[in-house]
Amino acid sequence: MVDHPHLDLEEIVRDSFDEDELQQLLARLTELEPAELALALESMPLEQRLNCYLGLAVSDQIDALMSMRVDARENIFRQLDDQQLRTLVEEMDVDALLELLDELPTRLYDYACSRLDASQRRWLETALTYDEDQCGRYADHDLLIINKNARVRDAIRLFQNLPDDTEYQDTLFVIDRTGRYAGQIQASRLLGQATHLPVDLLIDHDAPVVEGELDLDQGSDIVSRSGYTALAVVDSDGKLLGRLSIGEALENVRRSLESQFMHTAGLDEEEDLFAPIMISAKRRALWLGINLLTAFLAAWTIGLFEATLQQVVALAVLMPIVASMGGIAGSQTLTLMIRGLALEQITEQTYMALLRKEMGVAALNGVLWSVVIAIITYFWFGDWLIGGIIGAAIVINIVIAAVSGVYIPRWLDKLNIDPALSGSVILTTVTDVVGFFAFLGLGSLFLLA
Amino acid sequence: MVDHPHLDLEEIVRDSFDEDELQQLLARLTELEPAELALALESMPLEQRLNCYLGLAVSDQIDALMSMRVDARENIFRQLDDQQLRTLVEEMDVDALLELLDELPTRLYDYACSRLDASQRRWLETALTYDEDQCGRYADHDLLIINKNARVRDAIRLFQNLPDDTEYQDTLFVIDRTGRYAGQIQASRLLGQATHLPVDLLIDHDAPVVEGELDLDQGSDIVSRSGYTALAVVDSDGKLLGRLSIGEALENVRRSLESQFMHTAGLDEEEDLFAPIMISAKRRALWLGINLLTAFLAAWTIGLFEATLQQVVALAVLMPIVASMGGIAGSQTLTLMIRGLALEQITEQTYMALLRKEMGVAALNGVLWSVVIAIITYFWFGDWLIGGIIGAAIVINIVIAAVSGVYIPRWLDKLNIDPALSGSVILTTVTDVVGFFAFLGLGSLFLLA
Repeated sequence: MVDHPHLDLEEIVRDSFDEDELQQLLARLTELEPAELALALESMPLEQRLNCYLGLAVSDQIDALMSMRVDARENIFRQLDDQQLRTLVEEMDVDALLELLDELPTRLYDYACSRLDASQRRWLETALTYDEDQCGRYADHDLLIINKNARVRDAIRLFQNLPDDTEYQDTLFVIDRTGRYAGQIQASRLLGQATHLPVDLLIDHDAPVVEGELDLDQGSDIVSRSGYTALAVVDSDGKLLGRLSIGEALENVRRSLESQFMHTAGLDEEEDLFAPIMISAKRRALWLGINLLTAFLAAWTIGLFEATLQQVVALAVLMPIVASMGGIAGSQTLTLMIRGLALEQITEQTYMALLRKEMGVAALNGVLWSVVIAIITYFWFGDWLIGGIIGAAIVINIVIAAVSGVYIPRWLDKLNIDPALSGSVILTTVTDVVGFFAFLGLGSLFLLA
Repeated sequence: MVDHPHLDLEEIVRDSFDEDELQQLLARLTELEPAELALALESMPLEQRLNCYLGLAVSDQIDALMSMRVDARENIFRQLDDQQLRTLVEEMDVDALLELLDELPTRLYDYACSRLDASQRRWLETALTYDEDQCGRYADHDLLIINKNARVRDAIRLFQNLPDDTEYQDTLFVIDRTGRYAGQIQASRLLGQATHLPVDLLIDHDAPVVEGELDLDQGSDIVSRSGYTALAVVDSDGKLLGRLSIGEALENVRRSLESQFMHTAGLDEEEDLFAPIMISAKRRALWLGINLLTAFLAAWTIGLFEATLQQVVALAVLMPIVASMGGIAGSQTLTLMIRGLALEQITEQTYMALLRKEMGVAALNGVLWSVVIAIITYFWFGDWLIGGIIGAAIVINIVIAAVSGVYIPRWLDKLNIDPALSGSVILTTVTDVVGFFAFLGLGSLFLLA
């Protein structure tokens, strides 16, 4: 039993260090699993990250790069010279090449391809016929394949020849003469079997397969819910393209949930914590610009009531409350919907039930809080009419927020637009405009002489 | 190779159905993996959910309940009578009991305990000495344990006696006479070994262990990054408490990322899509109330400048823009920080580097957008002074938003408050108050006669 403490980045990440400290740090980094090493590098400011990266063995560099976020990886690539990149690609296998493809200059990519052997190049070409978000593109080619006619003793030999550091390699993938997938066998299934037995008698017929065309997120869900350590990825003719392991499934589940979270702020899950200021500013500027449009729309709505505001300044003081309550209530519905859509949990059949429920919740909370706000407003401004107006505006805004919270993501999803990214901007626009319009409109109707 | 299509809830979930349809539906449901079955039940409105649940075999009911969200599960429990609950707990093993503990009435819990055998009851008692968020509490007791002195042939027999539907059971956990964990062995390692060989010669000494006291999230990260299918969970004396498998690790990673996302809207990851209206309204009311406080604080800030607003109504029209730009910019920094903190990626050493970067990004975007807004404002109101004032207020607000975005989550994290839940409320309060104060304050200084 080895002493393997919880990865503690406080001990690893420094702002600056001397040569001795760097050597100690490198010794610690090389002990880490690839995913841990990648996280440690991502946690470092750019200068330290590059220094540590350059001190690693080439095989560790490749492992780390493959596990890193795209942006963090690019921020390393950007600082490597041609010779360093060349040394790197020389050691890449087909899986590394597929993962790092987009960050490599074209000439290096060609060079890397020329160094692959024929079977690896075939994997590469097949994988590239699939889209970036399809399982066929990211099927792992590091897998144990055995012919249907082989015997148990051949299977055992395959396992015995496995290198020590392989991950989730307890599965044997069986193919027929033409390369079509015939089933999988767990290592434990081979235990105690006669060595001359043909392997196809041991095939596990319950194991699902993953179609190459399937979306990577869906494929990952299948693997993660199947209870198997790895599943075969096959093309439309049933040919084995590679495997999707539980490790990769977990990584994909993690990325897709992280992207949901990051998208709520208009960020990408690949965003590097220590991205260069210019790059980061440029990327975020767009999101600020889009939100500025909605803010101007809200301001324009307020501008319609300038005359009213001039006469009843209390309306100007209170109006952010109406917009804010609608925004908060709407984002609760929106968030629940986004999760449900991501899990493909919301169907046409239950859609109306969901709308009824969310409207019911909105009506209850709308009435509750509008009474509270009306009372506070009365004590603040000494005017029951203003209290009544803000209460009514809040009920209207919260109920419309609930309807929007249900419909906007649904509608975005149908248009294949990510609701986690655009949903909140659109929802806020609706709740701002409706909130200001209802409140100032009612105010104009009832408060102007 | 079995035909196992992607789980399609559109085909399963209905708003209503007759007896024939229910039987067909049940036939489909029983084919699903437990995680899929749980998701299908969660996707159904309460009435359909209960009907389907009641049609399942007791063992499927338990499997589904264990994989369901707490709220969705409670909404089933709430509708079961005592006899139904009793039948259910009679079939529960120690892991089911530990998972469903909180939802069971005490007397049923005692009844369930009385039906466990001695060894299961010992597991239960040990697990209950750990907190709800510790690995020792959720260690899985369905694992293959072998004595150090056993031979390969004994190990092989263990694997051969495994039931068919076990998940991630390719690992053997070795203990000594006193129950202390001695190491683990993969099934594939046993292949081709002489059957009389003592198993302790085959132990994999690289496999990490998970301490029982460790936080479940951290334990799940260790498992997910280790490359192993399951790791041993041990107590402080090194005694084996159970295992943490990659399947459970994935489920925990999923829940913890989902909670991050749901918390941004003040929701819980356990929230049931079809929760009863009253329950859902009550839970969300609190969040609306907290946000109302911050909205009133913003309104109060505006109220300080009533006199100014009365004279320059353009300020009332434009003020939401200042608050909104600060809020958006701040939430980008906040979101990046929350992710970094969740990954334990942000350390004391790199904290200042991060602050400098975020302030740099804010300064760039602040200047860019304040110029744009100043120009638009000039064309709208024909007054350069108002343009200058809104520009200055936006630069101030965006830079303060960045500083708050870095400091607020850091400070909440130190106080052990979840920044994903409270961060955005506090940040919005800051950007609202600062935005209104800066804009209306500058307006009062420069625009009043």
